[in-house]
Amino acid sequence: MPDSRFYSSAGPFSVTQLSELSGATIATGHDLDKLVHDVAPLDTAGSDEVSFLDNPLYVSAFSDSAAGVCIVHPERSKNAPEGTVLLLTESPYLAYANVAAAFYPEAAIVKGGADAAFVHATASIGKDSYVAPGAVVGANVEIGDRCEVGPNAVIGRGVVIGDDCRVGPSVSIQYAILGAKVRIFAGARIGEPGFGFASTAEGHVTVPQLGRVIIGNETEIGANTTIDRGSAADTVIGDGCRIDNLVQIGHNVILGNGCIIVSQVGISGSTQLGDFVVVGGQVGFSGHLKIGKGVQIAAQSGVMNNLPAGGKYSGSPAIPMRQWLKQAAMIRAMGKKKANKDG
Amino acid sequence: MPDSRFYSSAGPFSVTQLSELSGATIATGHDLDKLVHDVAPLDTAGSDEVSFLDNPLYVSAFSDSAAGVCIVHPERSKNAPEGTVLLLTESPYLAYANVAAAFYPEAAIVKGGADAAFVHATASIGKDSYVAPGAVVGANVEIGDRCEVGPNAVIGRGVVIGDDCRVGPSVSIQYAILGAKVRIFAGARIGEPGFGFASTAEGHVTVPQLGRVIIGNETEIGANTTIDRGSAADTVIGDGCRIDNLVQIGHNVILGNGCIIVSQVGISGSTQLGDFVVVGGQVGFSGHLKIGKGVQIAAQSGVMNNLPAGGKYSGSPAIPMRQWLKQAAMIRAMGKKKANKDG
Amino acid sequence: MPDSRFYSSAGPFSVTQLSELSGATIATGHDLDKLVHDVAPLDTAGSDEVSFLDNPLYVSAFSDSAAGVCIVHPERSKNAPEGTVLLLTESPYLAYANVAAAFYPEAAIVKGGADAAFVHATASIGKDSYVAPGAVVGANVEIGDRCEVGPNAVIGRGVVIGDDCRVGPSVSIQYAILGAKVRIFAGARIGEPGFGFASTAEGHVTVPQLGRVIIGNETEIGANTTIDRGSAADTVIGDGCRIDNLVQIGHNVILGNGCIIVSQVGISGSTQLGDFVVVGGQVGFSGHLKIGKGVQIAAQSGVMNNLPAGGKYSGSPAIPMRQWLKQAAMIRAMGKKKANKDG
Repeated sequence: MPDSRFYSSAGPFSVTQLSELSGATIATGHDLDKLVHDVAPLDTAGSDEVSFLDNPLYVSAFSDSAAGVCIVHPERSKNAPEGTVLLLTESPYLAYANVAAAFYPEAAIVKGGADAAFVHATASIGKDSYVAPGAVVGANVEIGDRCEVGPNAVIGRGVVIGDDCRVGPSVSIQYAILGAKVRIFAGARIGEPGFGFASTAEGHVTVPQLGRVIIGNETEIGANTTIDRGSAADTVIGDGCRIDNLVQIGHNVILGNGCIIVSQVGISGSTQLGDFVVVGGQVGFSGHLKIGKGVQIAAQSGVMNNLPAGGKYSGSPAIPMRQWLKQAAMIRAMGKKKANKDG
Repeated sequence: MPDSRFYSSAGPFSVTQLSELSGATIATGHDLDKLVHDVAPLDTAGSDEVSFLDNPLYVSAFSDSAAGVCIVHPERSKNAPEGTVLLLTESPYLAYANVAAAFYPEAAIVKGGADAAFVHATASIGKDSYVAPGAVVGANVEIGDRCEVGPNAVIGRGVVIGDDCRVGPSVSIQYAILGAKVRIFAGARIGEPGFGFASTAEGHVTVPQLGRVIIGNETEIGANTTIDRGSAADTVIGDGCRIDNLVQIGHNVILGNGCIIVSQVGISGSTQLGDFVVVGGQVGFSGHLKIGKGVQIAAQSGVMNNLPAGGKYSGSPAIPMRQWLKQAAMIRAMGKKKANKDG
Repeated sequence: MPDSRFYSSAGPFSVTQLSELSGATIATGHDLDKLVHDVAPLDTAGSDEVSFLDNPLYVSAFSDSAAGVCIVHPERSKNAPEGTVLLLTESPYLAYANVAAAFYPEAAIVKGGADAAFVHATASIGKDSYVAPGAVVGANVEIGDRCEVGPNAVIGRGVVIGDDCRVGPSVSIQYAILGAKVRIFAGARIGEPGFGFASTAEGHVTVPQLGRVIIGNETEIGANTTIDRGSAADTVIGDGCRIDNLVQIGHNVILGNGCIIVSQVGISGSTQLGDFVVVGGQVGFSGHLKIGKGVQIAAQSGVMNNLPAGGKYSGSPAIPMRQWLKQAAMIRAMGKKKANKDG
């Protein structure tokens, strides 16, 4: 169970309550009234705790689990340990998300106001919003209601932050307009100048970066990620995106809604991603590309061309996944053949 | 036009003034006296704004633009929209840099002194320099004239910063000597100990890192980039370099003047780059290499050998670009052949 | 010699003392009583300084060195410059580590207590520990003895830090338990929520992250590195690990003891590394893998499968090093052949 030094449980909940919270169905004949005191992983869950099975890698952990209650796909019922109450759903991970959020709702804002922070006299801080110690809020900043600005965060002059946003410790945000329910994790750098300069024989002349960063509603941005502001137009991140840690997003990049960008991806300037594009870890994009809606790109790929909507790609340079798999198999086979000959 | 919450225009300027500022020539017969109120990208510029065309990808945006004035290469005159005043130059991006800097000069230091910062009694802060709230300046630090140390930045004991430097929010600088006109963007980490240890059967023994980081004049260092200090000798970054975000530079690395290092590059310890080396995003270098002057390395390459001056390289391991292009074409062709066979 | 603005020498030491400190043997007939005033690299060391030779790349620098004393492998005696006193050992780098640490011991904590920091009333700060200006220490934090919390660092509610730890400038630590003698360098982000969400047709639903980060004794974590907390179980980093800058470690990852993780590596969620695994720069790991004890992985590899203990791997996807070397040679040869034909 979660460490009580860090997390406070809102439980217990009955199995019936968990079913309602999660939309999962209680398996026929299982105990509706059983009280569940906490969430836990399959391998440590006890008889009064609820766990879940989503990734098929963990089916045997499920079968061996002592969890009192488990959220699973109906097809996995057959693998269930005896005595475990089952909550059945086609989307166990989603159901678990709702259950976990019921046990451990996001911590409420402790109190309104600012606390040993440096808030400029012209900044406006919304109702029930809190600015933590050491944070620096600049002139004419507008922060919505029920927001939290973490310790030692820096919010630059003129920045606008919507309602219900959470800005983590040591984040900096400049030249940016954020929607509502945005979460920015520790050390992210929003709105630094992009990598723009004109090169001459005598050296590089910096081009003033005059745009902004616009971030949509319900988007989350990972720790130590960097999103540069536009050069003249804006850098735009859509609604509901999930951007992981240590990602680099260059100036004038446009991300659609619901994009998933895994850690250490780099997106060069002016590249545009459609809605719900999924990008694996450590992928790189050249600049000025257009990537269609729903494209999926495997980890470590290097994308150098426009990609039409809907395909799956891999490799550096990135090619259609099917083609890449055959290419990789071919190279492996030839390498083995040579290895047999030589060695 | 740039958002007035973040940027203040020094305009308007006449076409004649823009010609003088940028070195671009007014196209014959075009309106010398037209007043220009702002800069803007091609697709949003209006009749009283100036834009530019540099990247050939945007020729059609140029032809469709409603910009009142545009900076272009003479060869692109033929693509110009009717009625747009043209400023002609061989280097449109450079000319635009100068025009944009005239409209939006770097913000002047608001005021001298320190403001809710923690400045050690023995630190020396130059004339008209400003230390922002939450910044921490250690013992015996020397900061030149007209510098800005951003909110929550940390300047460690003994660090020397030249005139006209800008240190961004939440930056930390330790064990370092900076030249003049250096700009360090948010969250960069200058002078942390390098990755040095002696491994034994019982574990790793840390080797004290006793060098410094030396940064030349007019160099710019991106957000959340890390530059470790030397182990015994120094880590040295030359004059006029442009280093992007999330770059890693190991101990004892030496960069010449004017190097361009794109985002997420990693340079291992003791590797040396000559002047004006250009490195694409996500490239990795082994340690102890010597890379000649003017070498250009494509994104995602892995450099494992010394490289003579002037060549272009690609791939992991990196090989001459020409050779790599043929290799890539060959692999692609074989993969397709196999794909056709297999169906 | 190290810059006295940053480093204070505890020297001089006699050759006999250095021999005792380092375990290296004084070469027969060499001057036992010679006084050594400092450490220095081979190329700048003077007659009263000690240097070392470890990397064979630098044998000629050794032969040309004016160092008064040098630590070397006995087999390198023959390359020694005339007049240099030799300290002989099988492990010159380890011996140098001990000598350098004698000259430049880690700076002692200047004073106990907190200094313009924001320490919550319920936090407990150990004996002779120091919290630097601008640091923010949350409720119920427990910090051991002889620790240093750097300027503008943030220690979240409930965090436990063992004795003799050093937390660098602008670090943030949340939901974490640290052992003794841990060093965390500037800007590292420990304990942010992992990348966990359930995707639906309407968008992504965030899964509460309810675990911790557990860090073993004597582990060091590089600048701007990110280590996410567990989702339900914990993220665990063993004893004596060396993690470089800008590394990403996902939720529920488990690292054994003594692992070496070079810069810009990304380890996806729930992957487990055994003891003394060595990972080169920019390597990526898929999630849910098990990597055996002592595995070594070359830079820029992409690890997509479980790996048994003890092997060496390279490539993306990663394959046994021997096989990869042959594959790479084969591709190179074919590319050259094609280049000759075409060009």
